[in-house]
Amino acid sequence: MVNYFSSDFKLGILGGGQLGKMMLYETRKYDIQTLVLDPSNEAPCKISCNYFEQGDLMDYDTVLNFGRKADVVTFEIEGVNVDALKKLESEGIKTYPSANTLEKIQNKAVQKKFYEEKNIPTADFEVFDTLKELNQAIENGKIEIPFVWKGATGGYDGKGVSVIKKTEDLNSLPEGECVAEKLIPLKNELAVIVARNPSGEMKTYPVVEMEFHPTVNQVEYVICPARIDEKVAELARKTAEKVSEAFEHVGLLAVEMFQTEDDRILINEVAPRPHNSGHYSIEASYTNQFEQHIRAILDLPLGNTDSKVGGIMVNLVGDKDHEGDVVYKNIDEIMKMDGVTPHIYGKKATRPFRKMGHVTIVDKDLDKARKVAEKVKNSIKVISK
Amino acid sequence: MVNYFSSDFKLGILGGGQLGKMMLYETRKYDIQTLVLDPSNEAPCKISCNYFEQGDLMDYDTVLNFGRKADVVTFEIEGVNVDALKKLESEGIKTYPSANTLEKIQNKAVQKKFYEEKNIPTADFEVFDTLKELNQAIENGKIEIPFVWKGATGGYDGKGVSVIKKTEDLNSLPEGECVAEKLIPLKNELAVIVARNPSGEMKTYPVVEMEFHPTVNQVEYVICPARIDEKVAELARKTAEKVSEAFEHVGLLAVEMFQTEDDRILINEVAPRPHNSGHYSIEASYTNQFEQHIRAILDLPLGNTDSKVGGIMVNLVGDKDHEGDVVYKNIDEIMKMDGVTPHIYGKKATRPFRKMGHVTIVDKDLDKARKVAEKVKNSIKVISK
Repeated sequence: MVNYFSSDFKLGILGGGQLGKMMLYETRKYDIQTLVLDPSNEAPCKISCNYFEQGDLMDYDTVLNFGRKADVVTFEIEGVNVDALKKLESEGIKTYPSANTLEKIQNKAVQKKFYEEKNIPTADFEVFDTLKELNQAIENGKIEIPFVWKGATGGYDGKGVSVIKKTEDLNSLPEGECVAEKLIPLKNELAVIVARNPSGEMKTYPVVEMEFHPTVNQVEYVICPARIDEKVAELARKTAEKVSEAFEHVGLLAVEMFQTEDDRILINEVAPRPHNSGHYSIEASYTNQFEQHIRAILDLPLGNTDSKVGGIMVNLVGDKDHEGDVVYKNIDEIMKMDGVTPHIYGKKATRPFRKMGHVTIVDKDLDKARKVAEKVKNSIKVISK
Repeated sequence: MVNYFSSDFKLGILGGGQLGKMMLYETRKYDIQTLVLDPSNEAPCKISCNYFEQGDLMDYDTVLNFGRKADVVTFEIEGVNVDALKKLESEGIKTYPSANTLEKIQNKAVQKKFYEEKNIPTADFEVFDTLKELNQAIENGKIEIPFVWKGATGGYDGKGVSVIKKTEDLNSLPEGECVAEKLIPLKNELAVIVARNPSGEMKTYPVVEMEFHPTVNQVEYVICPARIDEKVAELARKTAEKVSEAFEHVGLLAVEMFQTEDDRILINEVAPRPHNSGHYSIEASYTNQFEQHIRAILDLPLGNTDSKVGGIMVNLVGDKDHEGDVVYKNIDEIMKMDGVTPHIYGKKATRPFRKMGHVTIVDKDLDKARKVAEKVKNSIKVISK
């Protein structure tokens, strides 16, 4: 085994946002040296890594030259230069997840075709190179409204996805390659995180459930374990494993899926990295997702993915009416509640709906945790001074 | 409430060792700015803090000038200049724990007298200003062998303590003020961590038990909860609370105690900071000791001290036959075991018995954890290249 601990080994991380920051808690715990590349000079990762470089993640030379300083390269965001990763791999620098895997995932049209090819259940779809072609297909009845529009590239945090309910909705769509996906009646939106290492060892985390706001179409709580039938949970985990193996994925793969009204599991999309739906694991799991990602990409044994306690995650997003230096109003109130842990990502300025942090609520009794989570959501506010 | 989170508030930490390093995980989680002072340029805290300064913790001017850069000052080691802390307090810079509290604890003779004064149960003792006076007291029968010798100052990790079993043992004692303590037959060595904030809110962690090696007199496992009678545990926690209140302590106070054969609780000594006996809390508790220390000194609400699961801690100390660049032999073996988390402190070089890290083993079933802990202890070795 390579000696990673308090050694000269260097892990390169592309992206220095909150996911990278939480990954660094684990590299510090193992005393693994890290290099971080991020476009912002105020990146949350700027301290806690051994070396920080400011630069463009999509620039070939920047990523290549950065990667050459590392022994293994990983990323905390999909928007990185894949050609540079390929070059690094050709030079014998391991990049996990691999450039090939990332390439299939970066483009949603390619991703959807991949599922079709591998017989992985996903909602029916058509791919269009231009908006014009999509509109034509609608005119001659090949695509029926309502449907789900997905931009092939550039989507993040639910951006680049919109449900087209009426003809007028088409006017707001941007130009470019896109996917038109059949709108399917759902029971639940679920997610499963799969960890896989180069030796092929694979473990899945319990199925989590996204609970949406009753009226606004926005995830309010990520709940682990999902309050679903054991058979459905088993099917979800098996399907997620199938996806991870199909991609020959190494590292963490967050698999987002739909539970249909007739209890089928359809893959929505994947993220090849630690994921918002796994943040609960820091407090609730025997091995949190960030430690697991490090274990996986370094080909270390994978840790136990079971939960110690029930966990619920609430995102802390900037209040829609506030912009400027952030204040976490009533954070002391929520810290009075049992099993509540706030995570502050370290962004000085808040903006409407900007992801500023998250709060985890754990309890041996998941229903209790759910009630506390609601109190948390109704107490804390992310505002400006 | 002061706005600590992603604000200009600065916490100064005296000492940059592993305790400070683990404290920094929590200040990062809350995005609280930190300044660290440590004599070593290779201190584990050097990265992850916002500002690092190399300097002597016992030097008045160094500590004073460092402290003036902070809004609140704390420490992760007792060996700091108390007069500088007093000056900082007089200038309105909060130091927690307070200079007065630390002063009483730094000197074991003063500490023992304090317990006597406050009617806190502790083993009978005599204080001697010089070794000569101690020897005279033994000659004229005022002190009988066997007894426990404790140096008044400079003791750390059990150094500065020795059990005098025969006259020859006296020859090895160093010069200086000391405490001669009655040797008491014990059932167990226990510890309780108390958290207290400036508002007077107080919480205790469950009682932990030190399990010693059957033959060598060395702690092998710290076990939470202690496998003792509920009545004794209750008495231990109440006694620890009494000690914390007597010191008007703010922050974490680790209270080490003896359970006598007739189930009395006697205070051995205290540490006014996060403590080795609380490391298990990172994986096992709802609120780990480092987060709790931060909550306490910043007068935030204290977190739940209950455990999610049973926890056992094993120290990783340098093998007696190895010196030089460290290698953690078989660390991959222990990482295969469920509920096992290694913590590597980040010291490049190992030395015989040097504290290099620790391993936490958690399980809902404490007996299972105890068996795994033994496997861990028999597998991993801290050696040099």
